[in-house]
Amino acid sequence: MEIQFLGTGAGSPGKFRNVTSTALRLLDERNSVWLFDVGEATQHQILRTTLKPRKIDKIFITHLHGDHIFGLPGLLSSRSFQGGNEPLTIYGPKGIRDFVEVSMRVSETKLSYKIHYRELSADGMIFEDDKFRVYAQHLDHRIECFGYRVVEKDHPGELMVEKLREAQIPSGPVYGQLKAGKTVTLPDGRTVSGADFLGPSQPGRIVALLGDTRQTQNASRLTQDADVLVHESTFAKGESKLARAYYHSTNIQAAELAKRTNVKMLLLNHISARYTGKMALELQQQAREVFKNTRVVKDFDEYNVPFQKITAEGAQK
Amino acid sequence: MEIQFLGTGAGSPGKFRNVTSTALRLLDERNSVWLFDVGEATQHQILRTTLKPRKIDKIFITHLHGDHIFGLPGLLSSRSFQGGNEPLTIYGPKGIRDFVEVSMRVSETKLSYKIHYRELSADGMIFEDDKFRVYAQHLDHRIECFGYRVVEKDHPGELMVEKLREAQIPSGPVYGQLKAGKTVTLPDGRTVSGADFLGPSQPGRIVALLGDTRQTQNASRLTQDADVLVHESTFAKGESKLARAYYHSTNIQAAELAKRTNVKMLLLNHISARYTGKMALELQQQAREVFKNTRVVKDFDEYNVPFQKITAEGAQK
Ligand SMILES: [Zn+2]
Ligand SMILES: [Zn+2]
Repeated sequence: MEIQFLGTGAGSPGKFRNVTSTALRLLDERNSVWLFDVGEATQHQILRTTLKPRKIDKIFITHLHGDHIFGLPGLLSSRSFQGGNEPLTIYGPKGIRDFVEVSMRVSETKLSYKIHYRELSADGMIFEDDKFRVYAQHLDHRIECFGYRVVEKDHPGELMVEKLREAQIPSGPVYGQLKAGKTVTLPDGRTVSGADFLGPSQPGRIVALLGDTRQTQNASRLTQDADVLVHESTFAKGESKLARAYYHSTNIQAAELAKRTNVKMLLLNHISARYTGKMALELQQQAREVFKNTRVVKDFDEYNVPFQKITAEGAQK
Repeated sequence: MEIQFLGTGAGSPGKFRNVTSTALRLLDERNSVWLFDVGEATQHQILRTTLKPRKIDKIFITHLHGDHIFGLPGLLSSRSFQGGNEPLTIYGPKGIRDFVEVSMRVSETKLSYKIHYRELSADGMIFEDDKFRVYAQHLDHRIECFGYRVVEKDHPGELMVEKLREAQIPSGPVYGQLKAGKTVTLPDGRTVSGADFLGPSQPGRIVALLGDTRQTQNASRLTQDADVLVHESTFAKGESKLARAYYHSTNIQAAELAKRTNVKMLLLNHISARYTGKMALELQQQAREVFKNTRVVKDFDEYNVPFQKITAEGAQK
């Protein structure tokens, strides 16, 4: 599970940062890639990575501002052109379907795959399978905007085969039942519980990816205990009034949120073209004074989301 | 008057060629720039040139395929963001207005300028002012497609002041009337004609920019006697059947059109990603065997459209 930044700028494309798009690479976990926002030229950015458009099976749109969606028609077309034929689901605010469908209709683009649309209205869980849950939550932007929380389910512990042998429990189908955590009666009459023969489970990882927003209570529901928080930083320390007026956040507000909600790592994106080179580093320095594990990301940066260390007693909190 | 190529590829963006957009720089002539097609990331390409989006006052769309229009919403937004407030006119097939308006509505983009739409149906003149005429003509593509012919009006000859003095015609408002080509009665009773005191007029230049098309009779109406013809070359020599099947042209077909219609210079664009480096040069070589003044263009190439030389007897034919 890696986060790869395809566009880390704000508003308009600049020479150094493209408009917003973030890839969550889940190749090991589910052989797929999820995209969060698709600013114009996201497909051009993808050309400079190892990402394959046909592997993208979910696209989450935070809000419908142009710098977050104008790359969608082109990416969808190229995914088709490059042989993608697995269905794709697009999650986002009401209106995203209209935008995509009109673009496809006007350009007479016939996609080689089906698009499922999930236009969001209420907060809550929007996706679940055996490995992941995704939650959406309204944020506070000038236009309806969502943040997303991706929760990996815990990996069950390993079966402790050595301990089973010591207890003289013979291998066989019973091992499978014990691994699933069940309580089993053995041929010799003993009743044993899987829990006694399983190593510590590995807690899944939590990634929160927020859209453009000003400070809002809602955000903490997405960010609580997240292993990584990707947060906008359109404004800098001392500009909280400006940030509020423009429905955006400062680096300090993002850092405070990370600290307050026990986030492990904060990655700041949506960096204005006003902050180039050294000034972007300053954004990072300011935020680190509040929350040490902060990084201002650049286009093409990758972040490998680590598992939390586990001890024999169980997961670290 | 220069042509600047912002995207010379076909279908999908590649590493070396972006999707289609061509700028006609008319800075000396009318302090403005006209764009022909706006593929995705045209605004990104513009960032790497000296073009100013606010100087773009006309956009001509040849057809609505995605590789020719998906950059339009982003470019229009950035033109506004960068302070453009002069109105802009978009010419193109029916549907272009719907695409732009839905994009602007869904993204809640409020432009700082007005867009005039001219959705085309019939062939003919679509614009005229004191310096230029623009004609549109249907071509033959899978989707409705137009080519454009930009005709600069002739520049009237210079007033030959030396000759006026020799004829003892005193300077004054009469010079203005003579320069406008009028016949004037002088205070001394003589009647003189402006035509006798004007140098040779400078014929205006003609630029033909065609959209995607297979071979069609219609094209010659746009290309006849053009100083420059910008023509697609999706396929190569020997692939005319493929070209026909896909509603495109070969380099040879473009060269034959240029030769047959007395074009001065042929610029080939819409080059498939199948033709990289040396193979693109081969496209050029093949075409030159039919029409010598041929060039396969690359992104960011510029071509300065020359005036035809004039002689004392008048314009060269
Ligand atoms: Zn934004
Ligand atoms: Zn095309």
